[in-house]
Amino acid sequence: MSELLVSGGQVLLPDHSVERADVLLDQDSGEIVDVGDLSGDDELDASGGLVIPGLVNAHTHVAMTLLRGYADDKPLDAWLQEDIWPVEAELTAEDVRVGTELGLIEMLKSGTTALNDMYFFMPEVVETVESAGMRARLGYGAITVGKDDDAAREEMRDGLAFAREYDGAADGRIRTAFMPHSLTTVGAEYYREFVPQAREADVPVHLHANETTDEVDPIVDEHGERPLEYAARLGLLEPGDYLAHGVHLDGSEIELLADRGTGVVHCPASNMKLASGMAPVQDLLDAGVPVGLGTDGAASNNDLDMFDEMRDAAMLGKLAADDASAVDAESVVEMATRGSAEILGFDSGRIERGANADLAVIDLDAPHLTPAHDLVSHLTYAARGSDVRHTVCDGQVLMRDRDVQVFDERAVRERASERASALVERAE
Amino acid sequence: MSELLVSGGQVLLPDHSVERADVLLDQDSGEIVDVGDLSGDDELDASGGLVIPGLVNAHTHVAMTLLRGYADDKPLDAWLQEDIWPVEAELTAEDVRVGTELGLIEMLKSGTTALNDMYFFMPEVVETVESAGMRARLGYGAITVGKDDDAAREEMRDGLAFAREYDGAADGRIRTAFMPHSLTTVGAEYYREFVPQAREADVPVHLHANETTDEVDPIVDEHGERPLEYAARLGLLEPGDYLAHGVHLDGSEIELLADRGTGVVHCPASNMKLASGMAPVQDLLDAGVPVGLGTDGAASNNDLDMFDEMRDAAMLGKLAADDASAVDAESVVEMATRGSAEILGFDSGRIERGANADLAVIDLDAPHLTPAHDLVSHLTYAARGSDVRHTVCDGQVLMRDRDVQVFDERAVRERASERASALVERAE
Repeated sequence: MSELLVSGGQVLLPDHSVERADVLLDQDSGEIVDVGDLSGDDELDASGGLVIPGLVNAHTHVAMTLLRGYADDKPLDAWLQEDIWPVEAELTAEDVRVGTELGLIEMLKSGTTALNDMYFFMPEVVETVESAGMRARLGYGAITVGKDDDAAREEMRDGLAFAREYDGAADGRIRTAFMPHSLTTVGAEYYREFVPQAREADVPVHLHANETTDEVDPIVDEHGERPLEYAARLGLLEPGDYLAHGVHLDGSEIELLADRGTGVVHCPASNMKLASGMAPVQDLLDAGVPVGLGTDGAASNNDLDMFDEMRDAAMLGKLAADDASAVDAESVVEMATRGSAEILGFDSGRIERGANADLAVIDLDAPHLTPAHDLVSHLTYAARGSDVRHTVCDGQVLMRDRDVQVFDERAVRERASERASALVERAE
Repeated sequence: MSELLVSGGQVLLPDHSVERADVLLDQDSGEIVDVGDLSGDDELDASGGLVIPGLVNAHTHVAMTLLRGYADDKPLDAWLQEDIWPVEAELTAEDVRVGTELGLIEMLKSGTTALNDMYFFMPEVVETVESAGMRARLGYGAITVGKDDDAAREEMRDGLAFAREYDGAADGRIRTAFMPHSLTTVGAEYYREFVPQAREADVPVHLHANETTDEVDPIVDEHGERPLEYAARLGLLEPGDYLAHGVHLDGSEIELLADRGTGVVHCPASNMKLASGMAPVQDLLDAGVPVGLGTDGAASNNDLDMFDEMRDAAMLGKLAADDASAVDAESVVEMATRGSAEILGFDSGRIERGANADLAVIDLDAPHLTPAHDLVSHLTYAARGSDVRHTVCDGQVLMRDRDVQVFDERAVRERASERASALVERAE
């Protein structure tokens, strides 16, 4: 049995207490073997650091790193139609591969070990995530609006075929989902036809929902019901399904989510940057809805740093609730770790015997993390991605002393810069 | 004449364009001598980097670094009365010195060269800022509420005496202001008596205003007028005066600020964390009100990183305006540099011949800053304090290759940790 001892650090335990402890990982099974005062041959130095569960980015479009800073300060609709979709129409498989490599490097450097990706050219994403050594729930973002019936059905079939073919890839580190883009960009008839096939294939459904009023109002107008009532009628919101955003939800929809056990992935930065609104996160937590955290794509954030996202979640959650005690630091850390992991169906997000060996070591030796009254507070409000020293997934060290082990960072950055420039030129 | 050439980088120019250029600094006068294709003997390497104006943190309470993470997730009133004020009552001059050292180190490491500080034991703050080589507008935060008349008048006299004695210290790098804490924590009679004396002393007045509805409503109830109308009646809002927060402002107050030329220092992180509300920043900009940016104290933020603050300002500004095009990246960078500098009365915040030689060099060589479609966008949305390579103020290199030159970082961190623990123990 090959073992790795994460030694000498403090450890954030599942009850949010912090203790001096070592963490022993089984590199064959990819599980945490023990937490305590331990010894081992192969050690990863966590001294002066805090060992936390690897962060889980439960909603993003990784390859959009190529469009970071390409079009800012525009509302969602105009931004998608005038800027993002025209460029995305020019994307090649190789663009997506390189954009994904760039995004995964950024994630590893900021302590993220698992993610959800909804994008295009997903077989390339599978290969890249597998090379990265990370854990992911992946799906093809299918859109039918503006397509004729044949093209629309092909789009849905492609999404389903991908989900079927790759579920369980990379020794189970990769799971899939059926990912119709949203309730307004995919027609009702296609949900009716293809969602049952997703159920047969035993993969969950993930989609954007209730992100903006521009998306909610037409559904209410056309169908005379709230978007999530409409979704439930289409066969969505089954156990395991999860939505991104959930900004504009009324009380009945929150109750529906709680009853169904459907998760919501909160994306505070994107919701602010696109002026989409404030999700009722404390209400969701109070109702018992599973809540995770995601960065959304780098074009609407503009980074994939879950530390930024934790800070944003705490801050925006208080504004939304008009209550400074809402969405507190512990809730936020939970959301970014176990909350997101459970939504994606991974037994990660906790440093405990038997859980996946997915963790990050945070360097506490920094002026902005001094003094150390409360390390959970620091994780939420003061730490940043650059404080991560090591990142470990499935028992393997993917970043060691800030050096990414699984990709040539400089080469990826160069290729990504070249591809981003060429992509934008083609689209303009 | 001693000169320093900041060489090999790209430079953010006052019109927000970015050009390849060197920047020549006169270390005797502390001014920028030239910007262009230059040579010099003593060089500071900016290759692969972006030279930006030093960031200006126009409202903070620096020594509150000692209380970082001490009490989170509470509303302003309870937070001040139950947590912050009881601890602050135990502060010693040496606590403030060490807390200020810690805060200034954090600022230098995140590219800030100038600041406004409102706190206690201000002579110690003067000495610390002077040692740091930074530029600052400083004042004693005077509070009269809960004090008898003698104590209240002594408080105001102390504030005024400090402002008189230290204005122009550190070869003019330190300026002062008269800083009554707020409209509700200082009685009207004390404003009436002491503000004219501040005018005679030729120092501006800085105070918290319109931060929460809990502060606005009692003034409206008691005086039958908006807080800023009340302030104007007390002799405030003269040219050079500046307010922190300005969250809850009506149209007439925005007009008043514009007419008077009174600046507003926007503190988005603090306003979110304390659920104070959303300042109408785009409305302020549209009306021509001078707007700067500040972190507020580290206990309500929880860092002093102006990159976090720029991101928060852009994001919150869009939500407040319900418009994703509001408070765009250029406005935010302007706010954090020239906007803040002008409010504090410093000719800093622009890389241009004749301006103060206050700048920072940002390392662009990072995955989260790749690709480089738009560097102004990156400054606002994607860069973080840890991307700063060098920090220069008044022509002197205060941080070089992330190594703070003016303090022993490790020793300060240790002393600050010890003092923070002892302080909290005394208060509990």
